[in-house]
Amino acid sequence: MKNIFRKIKYFFVGYTYEQKEGTKKWQFELHEIIFESDTFKGKIFDITLLFFISLSTLIIMLESVQGINHRIGFWLYILDWWVTISFTIEYVLRLCSVKKTTKYVTSFYGIIDLISIIPTYLSVIFLQSHYLAIIRILRLLRIFKILKLGSYINESNALLISLKKSKRKIFVFLYFIIITTLILGALMYVIENKYNSENFSSIPQSMYWAIVTLTTVGYGDVAPITIVGKIIASGIMILGYSIISVPAGLVSAEYTRNKKIHLNTQKCRFCMAENHEPNAKYCFKCGHLLNEEFEESKKS
Amino acid sequence: MKNIFRKIKYFFVGYTYEQKEGTKKWQFELHEIIFESDTFKGKIFDITLLFFISLSTLIIMLESVQGINHRIGFWLYILDWWVTISFTIEYVLRLCSVKKTTKYVTSFYGIIDLISIIPTYLSVIFLQSHYLAIIRILRLLRIFKILKLGSYINESNALLISLKKSKRKIFVFLYFIIITTLILGALMYVIENKYNSENFSSIPQSMYWAIVTLTTVGYGDVAPITIVGKIIASGIMILGYSIISVPAGLVSAEYTRNKKIHLNTQKCRFCMAENHEPNAKYCFKCGHLLNEEFEESKKS
Amino acid sequence: MKNIFRKIKYFFVGYTYEQKEGTKKWQFELHEIIFESDTFKGKIFDITLLFFISLSTLIIMLESVQGINHRIGFWLYILDWWVTISFTIEYVLRLCSVKKTTKYVTSFYGIIDLISIIPTYLSVIFLQSHYLAIIRILRLLRIFKILKLGSYINESNALLISLKKSKRKIFVFLYFIIITTLILGALMYVIENKYNSENFSSIPQSMYWAIVTLTTVGYGDVAPITIVGKIIASGIMILGYSIISVPAGLVSAEYTRNKKIHLNTQKCRFCMAENHEPNAKYCFKCGHLLNEEFEESKKS
Amino acid sequence: MKNIFRKIKYFFVGYTYEQKEGTKKWQFELHEIIFESDTFKGKIFDITLLFFISLSTLIIMLESVQGINHRIGFWLYILDWWVTISFTIEYVLRLCSVKKTTKYVTSFYGIIDLISIIPTYLSVIFLQSHYLAIIRILRLLRIFKILKLGSYINESNALLISLKKSKRKIFVFLYFIIITTLILGALMYVIENKYNSENFSSIPQSMYWAIVTLTTVGYGDVAPITIVGKIIASGIMILGYSIISVPAGLVSAEYTRNKKIHLNTQKCRFCMAENHEPNAKYCFKCGHLLNEEFEESKKS
Repeated sequence: MKNIFRKIKYFFVGYTYEQKEGTKKWQFELHEIIFESDTFKGKIFDITLLFFISLSTLIIMLESVQGINHRIGFWLYILDWWVTISFTIEYVLRLCSVKKTTKYVTSFYGIIDLISIIPTYLSVIFLQSHYLAIIRILRLLRIFKILKLGSYINESNALLISLKKSKRKIFVFLYFIIITTLILGALMYVIENKYNSENFSSIPQSMYWAIVTLTTVGYGDVAPITIVGKIIASGIMILGYSIISVPAGLVSAEYTRNKKIHLNTQKCRFCMAENHEPNAKYCFKCGHLLNEEFEESKKS
Repeated sequence: MKNIFRKIKYFFVGYTYEQKEGTKKWQFELHEIIFESDTFKGKIFDITLLFFISLSTLIIMLESVQGINHRIGFWLYILDWWVTISFTIEYVLRLCSVKKTTKYVTSFYGIIDLISIIPTYLSVIFLQSHYLAIIRILRLLRIFKILKLGSYINESNALLISLKKSKRKIFVFLYFIIITTLILGALMYVIENKYNSENFSSIPQSMYWAIVTLTTVGYGDVAPITIVGKIIASGIMILGYSIISVPAGLVSAEYTRNKKIHLNTQKCRFCMAENHEPNAKYCFKCGHLLNEEFEESKKS
Repeated sequence: MKNIFRKIKYFFVGYTYEQKEGTKKWQFELHEIIFESDTFKGKIFDITLLFFISLSTLIIMLESVQGINHRIGFWLYILDWWVTISFTIEYVLRLCSVKKTTKYVTSFYGIIDLISIIPTYLSVIFLQSHYLAIIRILRLLRIFKILKLGSYINESNALLISLKKSKRKIFVFLYFIIITTLILGALMYVIENKYNSENFSSIPQSMYWAIVTLTTVGYGDVAPITIVGKIIASGIMILGYSIISVPAGLVSAEYTRNKKIHLNTQKCRFCMAENHEPNAKYCFKCGHLLNEEFEESKKS
Repeated sequence: MKNIFRKIKYFFVGYTYEQKEGTKKWQFELHEIIFESDTFKGKIFDITLLFFISLSTLIIMLESVQGINHRIGFWLYILDWWVTISFTIEYVLRLCSVKKTTKYVTSFYGIIDLISIIPTYLSVIFLQSHYLAIIRILRLLRIFKILKLGSYINESNALLISLKKSKRKIFVFLYFIIITTLILGALMYVIENKYNSENFSSIPQSMYWAIVTLTTVGYGDVAPITIVGKIIASGIMILGYSIISVPAGLVSAEYTRNKKIHLNTQKCRFCMAENHEPNAKYCFKCGHLLNEEFEESKKS
């Protein structure tokens, strides 16, 4: 029973872990504290962790603000290093407590945990790289696990699965966007360059303008001035405006379909076929009665 | 019969009120005028109220316009105070006429009624706060009740329920937006700050830019100038453009589901057919009466 | 048979006309030419009309361009008056040929025909009003009738019906937008006015900014500069971005429902109930068999 | 068997080709290399082709960048001509290897292949035309055929078919957009021209502004300054914002319908149940075999 709960939890952590013969006592306890959030110690650890991640993100943001940096920059610098070193120690402890080290290191959180400490160390050499440590905000995704917001994760997963399933359509869509902006960008370059060489200074610059326009962002830092250019620009705008909800529509269609599949919990006992119609009585593959399982699904 | 109508009306007012033994005659009459709109006096009161709310909003708007304020500012000031004092008296009368005072005070309209008079009084101390009195526009929502536009309220409620039900998905979506803009903002700060320190002066400023870009607003007050910056900006634009109708899609999916659930409560006792028309009396499949279940669904 | 075709055609013209005893011969012939497009003369007339409408629109556009106006303004002026006088003669002829004059005058095209000649005459007094004659482009809608593009009109009608049916939802939505922009506009005025009095010079101006931002247009002519202002602006952007496809979603839901209703052509012979389920065998209202009509609908 | 595969392949190439008596041996072999990608030689040819298309696009883009053109413009010029001449030779070879020359020349790829070499030759006379050679990026669409990404093509085709089917609705929508922007543009010209003659200098210019605003692009290079102008602008923004996903909604509705039609061709002969799973063999309602009809649907 307890085992099942743990398994589900591990599912959200992103890698599987099972205490086997080889695990030492301290490893197991450490693991309980760092990776679990059932015990009191584990809860304390997790909440402290979330606090430090948030604090650390805030520090990096504040350090980048000139006015604040001039006044309390030194203290932020100290705090930042202190948090980074804490994170490093935590990473090492995580490595120690896990049996299958490679599994953790290559898991989603394993990678995030590592790349959220590297930039600060790199900042000794490349000063600016330090700000990239803000990627540690991704560690905050653990909040879903810690606060037992499993249903939130389900929502995210459902979206991710829909995204994966419709990746082909999205690829075709992006391909279309890139080719369109490339051709229209070159066309606008030829038309506008003579009269407006500052704005449409090169084809890549024109492509940038075409993307800004097609996506209806419209900064206005680059804008056509010739009549032909404005006519073409109008065309791009109307095109972009017309296809604006196509990609989301593709994904949401997939999302709806997934939900539907999820509803049909029936599975034929004879040929193991799934995805039956919601009101199906007979298996569409082998023709056997689905009734018994139908009854079961009604009870639950 | 009359009681039912009153109950429905109270539903729209936002709190329940029932004349009990303890209520005095004048209280009841005052309540009829202020809270009800059936009687002639009540109608006059409500329409006067709507007029003064609109007038008051207009006054505040005009007071903020320099040119107008110079010429007729004094008269607007007098009018504004006069309306505010009237609203205060009305609020006190409302308090008197209601039996369960706390119920009114903590209801939606009770809170709105209060905070729509406070800013004017506060303006004696904090001059600018006076303009916040524009929140009294929310009192205009009473128009739905007064003009007996119950169906409009139903529409609003249906939307609100859908919003509530999909709040988890919206939360995940906003979380995704914030994390994305934070990371991309920091990245752009590192890339652009050296060449474009005015626009990308800090990470919060870069985040602001990322939100402006991702939401396809694109003011153009902050825009990238480096090549790498423009490439990343293009990526953000295409991302924002691609997911633009995701949140609305989530809510509308919920909305459609709600509507559907609302329609389908009947189920034929003989052939178990579902998804009957909302006003169906007979099963569309086997022709049996649906009455008994129809009655049940009406009671609940 | 011919009568039916004429009736359908009259439906698209926007008013009914039937040759009765009182109509004179020349009236009938004139009507055939001006209002019909079956006969050769009628066709010639209609195509000439479309040509002159397009020409007239082009003239008005060209007149407004400084460079062109300087050179050939006089000839455009002559042409414009000539077209307007022709349209006036045409309008008088239409009035003569129609039996029920008031029906034509109050019909959609009757009004358009009139207001497309008024601005030019008014331009003798108010110079600028002349450009408003561009409203005659609406006369081009006749193209659907002339080119017998009935199905296009059906599409438009289907959209219009959906719009009308969802007008309540749209009203609530617009109400929400206006209240939101009003309150946020006032808030931004209080916050930004001190530091940025040029951009946020008054509450109406701030409301304008709020609409520009909420609709994701983002001109950038007005933009916040304070930190609190930018945070609130980000909120408005994300709000506007999130609800962007809500109104279209509401309309399209209505559109889909209309289409569905259109599919269920069954009608009970006993109680005249419509809108049966697509696979219904029995009337959901009175329980009678729908079979016979079901068979009919299958044949057709 | 092999014939079927070839036929499918030809489907993607865009024209049919069948080796008949008249074809010479070298023609057939050349065809195998140039048009097919099954053989080793064919694969090598295709990958080389994709590489040169990409290279050529990159060259044109780089040539347009001032800084790069100054330094290595000469070499890019040489490379560009070399690629263009190679493409010309390839085009001639394609002409030779195909039996039915006109079929190839008039096919989609035949046209693209030709117009992707013309601009470079034209650039001897019109210097700028050279950049239009970027249209050769469309030749990259062959990647779907070469990498055997048939399913990608299916997605594209499904989208194209939906577009074609909803072209009437799109036409009505565009007509509506153009008429709206024309009338509102003229109105804004009349209102704004007196005070803001730089921005709203003519009706076409005002129309450009109306399109920029309606599509929510909002460059900000043209913006209203009068109060009435701002009110109308707000109206256009809210209109544009409200109908933003209408065109995509129309197409996606068509897309969903197409998909559905594609799935549901089976119908049970015994209980007339429809909407079977795409791979269903037995009726989900009564359990009868669907085979016979399954076979039929495969043949057609």
